[in-house]
Amino acid sequence: MQSIESLTQLISQFPGIGPRQAKRVVYALLSKEDYYLNSLAEEIKNLKSHVRLCTESYAYFYSHDTTETLHPIVKDATRNNDLLMVLEKDTDLEAMEKSHLYHGLYFILGGNLPVVEKDPQKRIRLSELKRRIEKQVPKEIIIAMNATPEGDNTADFLKKELDSFNIKLTILGRGLSTGTEIEYSDKETLENALNNRK
Amino acid sequence: MQSIESLTQLISQFPGIGPRQAKRVVYALLSKEDYYLNSLAEEIKNLKSHVRLCTESYAYFYSHDTTETLHPIVKDATRNNDLLMVLEKDTDLEAMEKSHLYHGLYFILGGNLPVVEKDPQKRIRLSELKRRIEKQVPKEIIIAMNATPEGDNTADFLKKELDSFNIKLTILGRGLSTGTEIEYSDKETLENALNNRK
Amino acid sequence: MQSIESLTQLISQFPGIGPRQAKRVVYALLSKEDYYLNSLAEEIKNLKSHVRLCTESYAYFYSHDTTETLHPIVKDATRNNDLLMVLEKDTDLEAMEKSHLYHGLYFILGGNLPVVEKDPQKRIRLSELKRRIEKQVPKEIIIAMNATPEGDNTADFLKKELDSFNIKLTILGRGLSTGTEIEYSDKETLENALNNRK
Amino acid sequence: MQSIESLTQLISQFPGIGPRQAKRVVYALLSKEDYYLNSLAEEIKNLKSHVRLCTESYAYFYSHDTTETLHPIVKDATRNNDLLMVLEKDTDLEAMEKSHLYHGLYFILGGNLPVVEKDPQKRIRLSELKRRIEKQVPKEIIIAMNATPEGDNTADFLKKELDSFNIKLTILGRGLSTGTEIEYSDKETLENALNNRK
Repeated sequence: MQSIESLTQLISQFPGIGPRQAKRVVYALLSKEDYYLNSLAEEIKNLKSHVRLCTESYAYFYSHDTTETLHPIVKDATRNNDLLMVLEKDTDLEAMEKSHLYHGLYFILGGNLPVVEKDPQKRIRLSELKRRIEKQVPKEIIIAMNATPEGDNTADFLKKELDSFNIKLTILGRGLSTGTEIEYSDKETLENALNNRK
Repeated sequence: MQSIESLTQLISQFPGIGPRQAKRVVYALLSKEDYYLNSLAEEIKNLKSHVRLCTESYAYFYSHDTTETLHPIVKDATRNNDLLMVLEKDTDLEAMEKSHLYHGLYFILGGNLPVVEKDPQKRIRLSELKRRIEKQVPKEIIIAMNATPEGDNTADFLKKELDSFNIKLTILGRGLSTGTEIEYSDKETLENALNNRK
Repeated sequence: MQSIESLTQLISQFPGIGPRQAKRVVYALLSKEDYYLNSLAEEIKNLKSHVRLCTESYAYFYSHDTTETLHPIVKDATRNNDLLMVLEKDTDLEAMEKSHLYHGLYFILGGNLPVVEKDPQKRIRLSELKRRIEKQVPKEIIIAMNATPEGDNTADFLKKELDSFNIKLTILGRGLSTGTEIEYSDKETLENALNNRK
Repeated sequence: MQSIESLTQLISQFPGIGPRQAKRVVYALLSKEDYYLNSLAEEIKNLKSHVRLCTESYAYFYSHDTTETLHPIVKDATRNNDLLMVLEKDTDLEAMEKSHLYHGLYFILGGNLPVVEKDPQKRIRLSELKRRIEKQVPKEIIIAMNATPEGDNTADFLKKELDSFNIKLTILGRGLSTGTEIEYSDKETLENALNNRK
């Protein structure tokens, strides 16, 4: 069953899908209409030609115009370009936009830094970020990393690296997040919750 | 982000994948090599032309020869054609073949019967199964359904429908399966375990 | 908080209860009525004087008569004493009784044998079982262990040890248990399901 | 098996323990030493005479001196009595003390308020809290509720009720708690994280 096996192998490279589920996906595809399969194949084939990486924010964006290089948010004159939020990845940008809470600009780092990492540039877009800041200097850079060891380490690293720009650098507020119970909170969360009480 | 959204929607139709994971898959695809994406698109496009449904066993099989109509197992002269095992789906056939325990032939029903089902033929290949039995009469038909309410109902239905053929009809043995603990067993499992003791 | 800590420690020895849940239990007890706490303390204190180990079946039983040595099932003249079912523990006996499927007698081994065990008598009541069999010889001994590696190992061991009695020895039937799906079954379960088909 | 059943029923009233686990606990107790069972029964019987409710903080405390009415923290002259932290329950106090982050005093509300509650005094110690504040006026009251709907509702209620005291009222800081990922954060958490950035 060469086709089934080879497609199963390709699909088992999807994040979060093991070989067993990949096989189930392939059998499910076999029972789909030709129209669905052709659409799926077309979308996959054209994905990277229609979706490009913004040369300023490094966020992915869609455009039929293959000469377009900028993400719609970057070109949106109503956005507040005094604020630059640095995020790890595109799905963070989507979560932030969906909340309608923030109207500044973004920069996608493309990754984070584990605690021990010799060559940060291999994992995050550090030189691209510096160039972006030099090109259009914001009044505040919001370093919006996850509250995880990797996120904290990345934030610490960026604070040092961006210090010489003499721009206000902020990190997201820490404390109790929705659903957090005091009894099960770690010391760090309790400390932030106490220090940031108001 | 039209392409990302439309591909996300197509992928969220995969079994066991919700919209959130589908989005993660799409972003993962964006970072893949062109070679991988083109292979994936090709395999999906050609899936149904290379993989066909066997006209006798109704199992999917792969062949470059587009005139081929029979699954390799059906054409394998070393298989025991006295035995016909009726299975719900292709992944059951794969599990059975992987165990190397069975050397007879197969028939894939293509589904099962929930307890209330007015039109069984819509859900399972009943007339196809009868035609297959008439064409090449086996000595024993093994009705190998899951030990679930749907599987039990399907087995009961098939036993009645196939009764008139006067062929030995068997169902898989019931009892403790690997890992089953007596303390947590339901009455039916304990009953089968006691009745089938040896 | 000595009392709270010491009671928390005692309760965290209950099976399946960690120190955190034990603490929650203690605070819950603090808000209970005196009547409840006194009943609980009484029942725990008297547990072993009211509940005794049957000298024949080694099952626990309750009796106010402190001279009573036999479990009610052992004394029940309507039970079939041709059958002796050997079980690992009391909760297995409860599950079996609750099913109303079996009307013979029982023997509780008090444990099982992991695959490597130098001194089986330390873990299971082997000499007690042999004495029980000699005292009142059954026609069939049903070795009713869990379908786990330990259960299988214990069953194999008992079959060898009891072989010289020349009594019919049976083990519980194996196959698909309620809920088992063919696709996810291991080879052993499929083999038993095929061999025990009927 | 009266004893086993009645003790099982008493133990199945423990928080987080169902009837099946309660039964397992009872069988585990049957195999324990007499010494353990007697200690357990004693501790349960004496729990409420050794552990009393502090008449000021309403926290439970242990003392052999049955005339003692105050929790050790209340009597500790080194604690900062300018700060009064209002908590839902004793295990919150334990979590806070374990963190060594806070050196003020406490008050245990004894519960929280679901969104619709006609008679708050039935669920929380409101009048006791007001009396405590009047007796020894703090400079700041930290309302330290869980970041749950009930906790938020309780905090809102207390802010209104305590407003007339003209004491500084604070609530714990909100934002990302340890482990929180931006992609999976709800709008409220993102809003707090943004507003409390620094």
